[in-house]
Parts: sequence; structure tokens; C-alpha cells
Amino acid sequence: MQENYNQLQTRMGEIWNLTKAQAVLNWDRQTKMPPKGAAARTRQTSTLSRMIHEQYTSQEVGQLLENLGPWLDELDFDSQEASLIRLAQREFYKRTTVPADLVEAQAKASGEANVAWMKARQENDFASFIPYLERMFGLARQYAKCFPDADHPYDALLDQFEPGMTVETVSRIFNEVKGPQSDLIKAIHESNVEIDDSLLCQHYPKEKQLDAALEAAQILGYDLERGRLDLTTHPFATSFSVNDVRITTRVNENFLNACLFATMHESGHALYELGVSPLLEGLPLARGASSGIHESQSRLFENMIGRSRAFSIYLLPILQKYFPAQLGGADLDTYYRAVNKVQPTFIRVEADEVSYNLHIILRFEIELGVLNGDIPIKDLPEAWNEKFKAYLGIVPPTDTEGVLQDVHWSWGLIGHFTSYAMGNIIASQWWHQMAEEIPDQDELMAQGNITPIREWLIENVHQHGKKYLPAELIQHTTGGPIDSGPYLDYLGSKYKKLYNLS
Amino acid sequence: MQENYNQLQTRMGEIWNLTKAQAVLNWDRQTKMPPKGAAARTRQTSTLSRMIHEQYTSQEVGQLLENLGPWLDELDFDSQEASLIRLAQREFYKRTTVPADLVEAQAKASGEANVAWMKARQENDFASFIPYLERMFGLARQYAKCFPDADHPYDALLDQFEPGMTVETVSRIFNEVKGPQSDLIKAIHESNVEIDDSLLCQHYPKEKQLDAALEAAQILGYDLERGRLDLTTHPFATSFSVNDVRITTRVNENFLNACLFATMHESGHALYELGVSPLLEGLPLARGASSGIHESQSRLFENMIGRSRAFSIYLLPILQKYFPAQLGGADLDTYYRAVNKVQPTFIRVEADEVSYNLHIILRFEIELGVLNGDIPIKDLPEAWNEKFKAYLGIVPPTDTEGVLQDVHWSWGLIGHFTSYAMGNIIASQWWHQMAEEIPDQDELMAQGNITPIREWLIENVHQHGKKYLPAELIQHTTGGPIDSGPYLDYLGSKYKKLYNLS
Repeated sequence: MQENYNQLQTRMGEIWNLTKAQAVLNWDRQTKMPPKGAAARTRQTSTLSRMIHEQYTSQEVGQLLENLGPWLDELDFDSQEASLIRLAQREFYKRTTVPADLVEAQAKASGEANVAWMKARQENDFASFIPYLERMFGLARQYAKCFPDADHPYDALLDQFEPGMTVETVSRIFNEVKGPQSDLIKAIHESNVEIDDSLLCQHYPKEKQLDAALEAAQILGYDLERGRLDLTTHPFATSFSVNDVRITTRVNENFLNACLFATMHESGHALYELGVSPLLEGLPLARGASSGIHESQSRLFENMIGRSRAFSIYLLPILQKYFPAQLGGADLDTYYRAVNKVQPTFIRVEADEVSYNLHIILRFEIELGVLNGDIPIKDLPEAWNEKFKAYLGIVPPTDTEGVLQDVHWSWGLIGHFTSYAMGNIIASQWWHQMAEEIPDQDELMAQGNITPIREWLIENVHQHGKKYLPAELIQHTTGGPIDSGPYLDYLGSKYKKLYNLS
Repeated sequence: MQENYNQLQTRMGEIWNLTKAQAVLNWDRQTKMPPKGAAARTRQTSTLSRMIHEQYTSQEVGQLLENLGPWLDELDFDSQEASLIRLAQREFYKRTTVPADLVEAQAKASGEANVAWMKARQENDFASFIPYLERMFGLARQYAKCFPDADHPYDALLDQFEPGMTVETVSRIFNEVKGPQSDLIKAIHESNVEIDDSLLCQHYPKEKQLDAALEAAQILGYDLERGRLDLTTHPFATSFSVNDVRITTRVNENFLNACLFATMHESGHALYELGVSPLLEGLPLARGASSGIHESQSRLFENMIGRSRAFSIYLLPILQKYFPAQLGGADLDTYYRAVNKVQPTFIRVEADEVSYNLHIILRFEIELGVLNGDIPIKDLPEAWNEKFKAYLGIVPPTDTEGVLQDVHWSWGLIGHFTSYAMGNIIASQWWHQMAEEIPDQDELMAQGNITPIREWLIENVHQHGKKYLPAELIQHTTGGPIDSGPYLDYLGSKYKKLYNLS
């Protein structure tokens, strides 16, 4: 059995090397590639995708997994061996279950839908996008049908981003937070408290913003011996090994938050990947557990630390060093209130903490409605605007600022949005658990000493990489399932104070 | 047959995508990678190497080549189909002829020898490097033995860098140039003409040097839509497609030449790859024909254009714009003479045009002597210094500045140096041929109009990529074999004028 396992490990190591090679090519495409390099780059990454797929589904891997099946039952569930076999089984099963021509059809359709989406968004022309959306949702339905054992077709879609997650769990959690978050928005609106964030909207020169953001990232624990920061249109983090995890950010010279908080967000993603145990290095286990668990880390560093009053005590003087003219006169509370201002906006990626999940929930409900056949594609703008009004109290003036704003559906990413909201909720669970074990969280943050917080996260979350499914990981650390309680407590206590609500 | 060919083309396209993916990973390693990313990067490129090797030597490719053998005889020699089949045959033959354990032994030994070389060079301790050199030359002998049909064992080594090149040709050419170049050095030394290059040795700020070098590269035709310039310790050019060819350079703030001429040199390499026909894109034919042909392009752009009096007429005012304090008062002849100053140096990469080939010839003679058994490894320093004295009139004071200076032997690159000198000689052949067809070369360069020169090179050299062996390409353009005549004419007429020799 050990010999079979060693062979499996070798195969998985090769797959991982190809996967990381592809990640380097994608990073380069978005950060450094000259414009005319794009066509060849697509060919190169396609070849790597095909080889990765061929290796995950090879006869040899299939045979090894068959041989190792009985051994898995004997192995300690928490062992690296058991985790790798489970991961290889999942990949083998899913990749051999979905027909190659469906994967190809999705790739082709998403290329065309993406072009159509860009045009439709630019021209505020939803009608022109309808046939492409029909096709992408149709393909998603076909994908779901490949997994007839799922309790709900949407479960198969969720499983692509959150292995093991179900529509039942998502619905339960979303129903728990929807009312309270929507009520909080209303209460804030009705409080007539106006937070002045004009100090953030001054001119902040690009280079200084980048320097300040990088210093903030380094305070959080990001290490330039094991990473680097570059500029891109859309910020992201990407990992090439547990010792090479890179982040990107963007700059708006007239709004401080864009660069600063995006950088702290991406630092959270990066610290997760940097915290994976070196024992998992070189294997497909050496990565985050899921999109949602990843988002729990990025949101934790961005919001629970980055936007906390405690950390602001430490961060504001550093920002003042970079921007004496703009921030020299700002006091702590003015700054803290400004970076936490609640203001419903049409655009998800600009949403504040209180609104954010509501943007996700309406997308989830719409996806489900379309898949169930309850919402015809042609009625999406109407459904969107109705829900927007109900949850956030405002209505987008155009589809460009409404149903057409996100790229995801054009890429066929249906079921992916939920991860963002689940990440917020899970982040609070870690934070709450951590507070019990590190009661001086606030004092540490106020001193800029993030090390104990990061070490707690490494110990409880990061080191495990992809050894566990999301629910298993949450159970492992918190002793229970995913739970919206800590999140609602966090949100309520923070924002009631900020807006003088009872 | 067409079906067999289409399959071969598909296989070769995939190999090429993997090869270019590996090139991106290597570029990133040298330009952007954080220090601790190195270990994983080695694993990633090793996996790609193995997959490339497996694909070149797969049963499927072997069968396709067997099927296509008779067709090749019918095809037009100059056709893309025939060239691709010939290339695939060469790769298949060489890769299946050299045993895998020899390749592995070379990789392992070169890793160890490289570490030993760095230490030996640093500590000026040749003795400690002897066992490693013994091993690298021993492995080179074993490699050569895999090709018993070669007229000379060294031919098999040459063939790795210059397909089809023979020791007979190299010896003939080197014997033709050795005497005249050595005599020219002596005559220059005895002329007592002292060129003052102090204007190049002032303080030139890094950013300005990079800007000026990039403008020079762009004048030569380098296009930032299809490439980019970065900083590295050792300048290089690398290609990811015919539309993405990148260069790197270095800066010495106290010597203008280092950055400026390295950048023009690498631009020459890049323009070659950028000039390959789009018809060859995506196939292993879409690259330079050999190391020597590549060097002919880099040296042509660096020396025949970059160091010419004609191009200096155009370039000097541009440099003066970047460096008014340093170069504002310089006249054309002072600048032209300074960038062409002949001064024998111990270090190959710092050598002037007149000395350069002599550095190569002594390495070639030593490699041949060691392989023949005429020079024992332990006597290398003595042999090196004797030849240095004889050809260049000086003796390195230490082995660090002598026999230990180059990395090549530690990597097992034996037979590679010759390409550098062959490049100089071939460059003159193209230049001479071009002068007959573009008689106003000098006027064009003085106007900064390099387009007709570049177009000539695209037409006669670049577009063909790797369709031909080096000798075939030279024959194709010049109608004859490699010939040292144009080079000796070029060198003699340029430097006799500069040093007032009769």
C-alpha cells in the first residue's frame, strides 16, 4: 500500500507543479505581459489545463485509487495520506463524471459570453446578453445533472467552490442574516447619523499609497522574502508555493480606501496560503480549503483587523507619516468612523460591511430562481431591482449598475457568489473563537502586534491547507457547524455603536 | 500523410506550449520571484522538462515520424512541413539516443559543480574545483560516445548548440581569425595611441540609464507592445511567443556602456525572435536557428549598428538629452572612439571587439585538449595563462580572473563558447551581404532609420526561425558556407582607422 501511496503522491506532486506553473502564467498575464502576448498565453495555459486534467483522470491514478480504497478506511482521518487520497478521489470522480464535451462547451460558451457581457454592460443592453445567459445557465443545469445523487442540483454547482456545501446550509445561514442585516441598514438610514468620510476622498498620490499599503501588509505579517506586490485592474492573490504567494492591488488617487483595504484583503488571502504547513508543500493539499474559507481570511484581515478601532490606533499614525497634509489633523475617531461608513451602493465590490452580504444573498436567490425555472432570464433585471429595493432600500438606475455589473455569470461561475458571504460569516466564527483564547486581541492590534493572531490562525486554519472540507475544518476548530451567531453579534455591536443605535 | 502530419503538428504545438511555459517560469525566477520561491520553482521547471522530454520521445511521435519518413523525401526541402519533420526527427533521435540516466547524472552533477565553482571562484581555489571539472568533462565524453557516427567526439557537443556544426569548421574559422586578431591587438598596443574613454566613466544615474537604453532599443525596433525591459544581474533575452519577447539589462552607475550596449545586444536577440514568421508561431520552429545565429543578431545590433560611427551620429544627441552634464560637451569622435576603445582584459564579458574572439578561441582549444586527453584538468590554469599571454599579451593575476571566470563548465556547457565567436563572424557575413543590397546603410543609421536594415534581416534571417540548420541558413542567404573574410575586413578597416594603423 505504501508503494501505491508513494506513486499517487508523485503523480499528485506533478499535477501540482503543472497547476502552479499555470498560476505563474496567469499572474504574468495580469501583471507583466505585454499586450500582444495574450494569444500565445491562452494556448499555453490551455495546454497546461489539458495536461492537468489528463493526469488527474489517468488510468494509472484510477488504478492507484482503487488499490488504495481499502487502506483509506484504515488510515487516521486527519493524516496527510488520508487527506490526499480523499482529494484525489474527489478530483477523479468529478473530472471523470463530467463529460469532456460539456467542459469544452463551457469553455467555448464562456469565452463568447464574456465578450457579449462586456458589450452589454458598456451599452446597458441587457436584452443582448439574454441568449448568452440562457446558454450559461443551461450548461450549469447540464453540469448539475451529471451528479444525480445530490439533494439539489444547486449543490453540484456549490461543490465546485465549497466542497460539501449544500443549498440547505446556505439557505439557512442566509435566512438568518438577511433580516437582521436589512434591518440594520434601515436603522442606520433612519438614525440620521451622517458619517463624514471626506478625509478619505482627498488626493492621495499613487506611489505613497502603494508604500503605505505595503507597510500595512507587512504589519499584518506579509513577508517580501516570500511574496511581492504589483498593480492590476482587479486586485488578487495567487500562490506558487507555500513560500511564494503574491498579491496585487489597485489605486484610486482620490479615495484612500481602495488601495489600502484591497491590499489588506489580499494580504489575508496570501497569509492563508503562506501559513499552510510545509509538510503539505508540493501537493494539491498545499492551498486553501475553499473559496469561502479563503474569503474568511481575507475579510478577517481586511475588516476584523484592518477596519477595527484597535488596529486603527496603530495604523493611523503610520498613514499620517505617508500623508501628513491629508491626514495630519485627523483624530482616531474621525478616521475610524470614516473607514466604516455605511452607505448602500449599487456596486457589490464597493459595498460596506453591513450591506455586503445582502448583495450576495440577492444573487444567490436569483441563481436559484433561474435554475428552478421560477425566474425567466428575461425577467432578471426586474427581479434584481425588486430585491435590491427590498434588501438595500435603493434601486439601480441602469442594468449596468445592476444585474450586469458582475463578470461571474459570463464565465459560467454560477454558485460562486455565496462563498463571499459565507467567508464573512466564517471569519466571525474564527474571530470569536480566537477572542476566547486571546482575550487581549484589541491591545495586541493597538500595538501593531499581529503575530499572536496570525499564529492562532496558522494553528487553527492555515496549516491544514486543503486537508479538510470546509465544514470539517470549521468543526475541527470551533467544534460545531457553520454558525451565523458570531457574525450577527459582531456586526450589531460594531455598527450600533458607530451609529448610536440602541 | 496529411493526417499524420497534422497529429505531429499538434504534438509539437503542445511541446512548444510547455517549453514556453517553462521559459516564463525561468524569466520570473530571474526578474520577479521572491527569494524563497526558488525551491518550488526548481520542482516546477523539472516537471515541465520531464513532460517535454516524454512528449518529444513518445511512442506516438516515434510512430508518426516513421509514417512520415517517406513523405519527407517528397516534400519541398524549404517547406514548413519538411522543416518540422526534420526538427522532430532530430529531437527524437538525440533524446532517445542519450540514456535517461546520463541526462540525470548530468543534471545532478551540474548542480553540485555549480556550487563548487561559485566557492572556488570566490576563494581563488582551482584545486577544489578539479574533481567537479573531471566529472563534467567525463560526462561530456560519455555524451559524445552516444553518437559514435560523428567524425569527432567534440562534434556531438557542438551539435547541442549549433546543429550540424563540426570541429573541422570551427577549427578552420578560428585558425583564420586567430593570427590576424592577435596581430591587430599587438599593433594597437604598439601604436601608442591612447583612447580616452573617461567620459563614459562618470556617474550616470540608474533610472536615466534605463530610460536611455530603452529609447535606444526602441530606435533599433524593439516594441513594448511585444516585449518589456527588466533589470537582472546577467542580461538576457527570452521569448514566450513571436509576440512576447522580453529583454533584461544591468546598470553600472559609473560606466555608461554596461547598460546601453547590453540592452542593444539583448535587443538584437529579441528582434530575431520577434522577426520569426507568424506562420511558424506555436511550433518549435518559432525560435532562432542556433546559439551562434542568435549571437550574430545580438552582436550585429550591439556592434555593427550600436558601436558604428554612423549610428553614433544619431544616438549621441539622444544620450546628451538624458545626460546633459556628463555628455553635453562630448563631440562625436570622442564618443565614437571611447565606445570602441581596445584594451585587453582578463574577463571575457568585458572584452572589446578585437579581443573577444581570442577569449573564445583559447576556451575552444582548452576544451578540445581536455577531451583529447592532451591537457590534464589539473594543468588547466597553466594552459589558460599560456594561451592568454600568447593571444592577448597579458596574464591573469589569479585563477578567479582566469580559468575560473565562467559559469559554463560547471553547468556542463562544453562546446558552447564557440557559438559566441561564430556569431561575430556570421554577423559580418550578413552585414556584408546587406551592404551590397542596401548601399546606404550608413546614411540610414545616421538618421536613426533602422527599419530597412531590420527588414532585410527579417527577410533573410529572422523569418526562417529554426527551419534550417545554421549552415543551411547561411548558404540560403549568402550562397556560401560560413566565411571569416567579411569579419576580418570589418575588424581591420574599423580598428586600423581608429588606431591610425596603416
